Amino acid sequence: MDETTQPELRSFIPVKPDSDFPIQNLPYGVFRRVDGRRAVGVAIGDQVLDLTEAESAGLLKTSYFGEPSLNAFMGAGREVWRSVRAQVSQLLREDVTTLRDDADMRDRVLVPQSEVTMELPAEIGDYTDFYSSREHATNVGTMFRGADNALMPNWLHLPVAYHGRASSVVPTGTAVHRPCGQTRPNDEEPPVFGPSRLVDFELEMGFFVGPGSTLGNPIPVENAADHIFGMVLVNDWSARDIQKWEYQPLGPFLAKNFATTISPWVVTMDALEPFRCAGPTQDPEPLPYLRSSGPQAFDIQLEVGLKTPKMQTAASIAHSNFKYMYWSVVQQLAHHTVTGCNVRPGDLMASGTISGPDKGSRGSLLELTWRGTEPLQFETGEERKFMQDGDELWLSGYCQGEGYRVGFGECRGEVLPAKTRG
Amino acid sequence: MDETTQPELRSFIPVKPDSDFPIQNLPYGVFRRVDGRRAVGVAIGDQVLDLTEAESAGLLKTSYFGEPSLNAFMGAGREVWRSVRAQVSQLLREDVTTLRDDADMRDRVLVPQSEVTMELPAEIGDYTDFYSSREHATNVGTMFRGADNALMPNWLHLPVAYHGRASSVVPTGTAVHRPCGQTRPNDEEPPVFGPSRLVDFELEMGFFVGPGSTLGNPIPVENAADHIFGMVLVNDWSARDIQKWEYQPLGPFLAKNFATTISPWVVTMDALEPFRCAGPTQDPEPLPYLRSSGPQAFDIQLEVGLKTPKMQTAASIAHSNFKYMYWSVVQQLAHHTVTGCNVRPGDLMASGTISGPDKGSRGSLLELTWRGTEPLQFETGEERKFMQDGDELWLSGYCQGEGYRVGFGECRGEVLPAKTRG
Repeated sequence: MDETTQPELRSFIPVKPDSDFPIQNLPYGVFRRVDGRRAVGVAIGDQVLDLTEAESAGLLKTSYFGEPSLNAFMGAGREVWRSVRAQVSQLLREDVTTLRDDADMRDRVLVPQSEVTMELPAEIGDYTDFYSSREHATNVGTMFRGADNALMPNWLHLPVAYHGRASSVVPTGTAVHRPCGQTRPNDEEPPVFGPSRLVDFELEMGFFVGPGSTLGNPIPVENAADHIFGMVLVNDWSARDIQKWEYQPLGPFLAKNFATTISPWVVTMDALEPFRCAGPTQDPEPLPYLRSSGPQAFDIQLEVGLKTPKMQTAASIAHSNFKYMYWSVVQQLAHHTVTGCNVRPGDLMASGTISGPDKGSRGSLLELTWRGTEPLQFETGEERKFMQDGDELWLSGYCQGEGYRVGFGECRGEVLPAKTRG
Repeated sequence: MDETTQPELRSFIPVKPDSDFPIQNLPYGVFRRVDGRRAVGVAIGDQVLDLTEAESAGLLKTSYFGEPSLNAFMGAGREVWRSVRAQVSQLLREDVTTLRDDADMRDRVLVPQSEVTMELPAEIGDYTDFYSSREHATNVGTMFRGADNALMPNWLHLPVAYHGRASSVVPTGTAVHRPCGQTRPNDEEPPVFGPSRLVDFELEMGFFVGPGSTLGNPIPVENAADHIFGMVLVNDWSARDIQKWEYQPLGPFLAKNFATTISPWVVTMDALEPFRCAGPTQDPEPLPYLRSSGPQAFDIQLEVGLKTPKMQTAASIAHSNFKYMYWSVVQQLAHHTVTGCNVRPGDLMASGTISGPDKGSRGSLLELTWRGTEPLQFETGEERKFMQDGDELWLSGYCQGEGYRVGFGECRGEVLPAKTRG
């Protein structure tokens, strides 16, 4: 096992047992201080280690953190990632004095998370959204086409995906206005324009591409892991009524492009490695270009919370797990590039909605309420079929280690009322 | 009429009557000199005016051309665009001596087009592809669903579109390897992997977004023109067999993301203004958010040439016109942002295949050969259903003025054999 993931490792910075950010995690993000300075950082406990300052102070032998963006670091590749991770781990260990015993330096490079604002970790060149949960595709297919035709004929043969909108990917905490758009509530009447009535979330995870590829040169599935930097939580906000009317024949467009919220800390594949596990059996066996060996799933426990304005804390509405994904991240990347499509450092590829085998593990309100026919009931006496104005949606996720968690931080967004022109 | 578009205006640089680049055009691009220097330029006759040099020499009162990319200039807005256009026009006029009579300066800022390599004009943040030709949608719909169900119910109510892949947009001249991918030639057999057998082009045009918008704030249709910088030719390469197997339910993905070729000179909306004309009548009347006043189409004559290795020059295989587009560029941009989706300077939005009313005006081989049932016949004795290895595809386009043309330059790509692994 990699030294940086050893369960007994401790930092001199206090880390609570249920913290997302023990020394075994060390996720990367971009943050802004109160004075406006932007920097790359690593989360540790409730602090941020400012890598831009640490690099400039000579604490790290790196040259990737001068700009407040992770693109260059993502593109640098695994050898660099491991070296930097080892340096950061070393700097934060309880038994290493360099930073621990230097109060001035601690003041310079450590800042409480409560005093920073998180930004997007990278400039996302292209954003792709897969559709890789069999349970989700089956649920949606059953609702729209019946149980016998739930999965399209292609679904078990390739990881279906579509290109999403990169410009509207936003970091946690960004409020999202209810979108206005064109819908056709009644098939016998002309379409109408107005605020979407069926705003939904989708519980997803996404990976950031590391080193890119050049046009015409596919990334073979056996090399794909070298091109994957790390993962975040993704909420693919969806307007179901707009989607229903617009999506044929070219797929979802406006229904998905008004906002996509991500958690701001990118958890590296090195930190996730101890939680690698087997995914679902793939039958039929995929074509050779999609065949990989060894376990390719990750045991990441996921939870969805919904908080109405009346609630003090969010109510838990779903539990799922990333390991339910039928198609793995290496299969997704191999498929994406098999035609020769090039990828670039910082590209984001999301999993699609992650639904599990039982009712409580469904990753969208569409599925949880079965198209609104089974509303969610809350202790406040409220019910929800879809998101209402003022509702907040929280995604969280973590891997459970021995005495520590490798978590993703928050992926949160509030639905604000539609803006009307004026 | 704007002074810079007057038909009688002449440059001291010789411009042939059939040149795409008279002084009335002045399109912008990014080029690389033989010595590797990259710069922003304007095409004039068979020369390029190097704006980066001209700015640095003080010939232009501008501050947008220090970087070899048009994003900053695109984002600067119409007032700046008009001021720079007026300055460039002034500099190139036959009756203005500043540059004309300064041989040293001419050497510094003018370079033959034959001595430069054209690059992408901007960093494209997001690429969107519409589907706005009624004739194209009808042709494709007829082939796949029959004449009675050719147009989807939504088509006449909104400009259907999907998000494309920005990373694989390439400038003219970039060779394109035949993509490999998954197809299912026989519905009774499992899918297979291999080189696409049905590589096609699509004749499109695209516009570059000027000033952007912020998340949650739609661009009203009456303001949309202020956010459109200029246009290029677009070849949306398509692998029909991959598309057929993958596209349901989320739309085209790998079938379209292996390459999209654009012409390198961005013709500004100011240069196109004299060629504004009425588009097709829209019935039913669009919803208010899509209603614009005045003519919104542009009379741009388009031609497609195909050159097999046996041919000396490309054979003309289709003539079309941008004015056939049912949905206008301002409607496309208003629709794209109506949910609050933000756009950024340098975003590219393509029209979708531009097919006209008759057989010879169809904008793809799929339509021209009616799914391969009516192969194209050439004087060389060859025939084509789809693109063969070694075939070159050319798009060209121009507006015919009185004694001059406002043209787009070349949009060319050759299909190379599939790369096999090893």
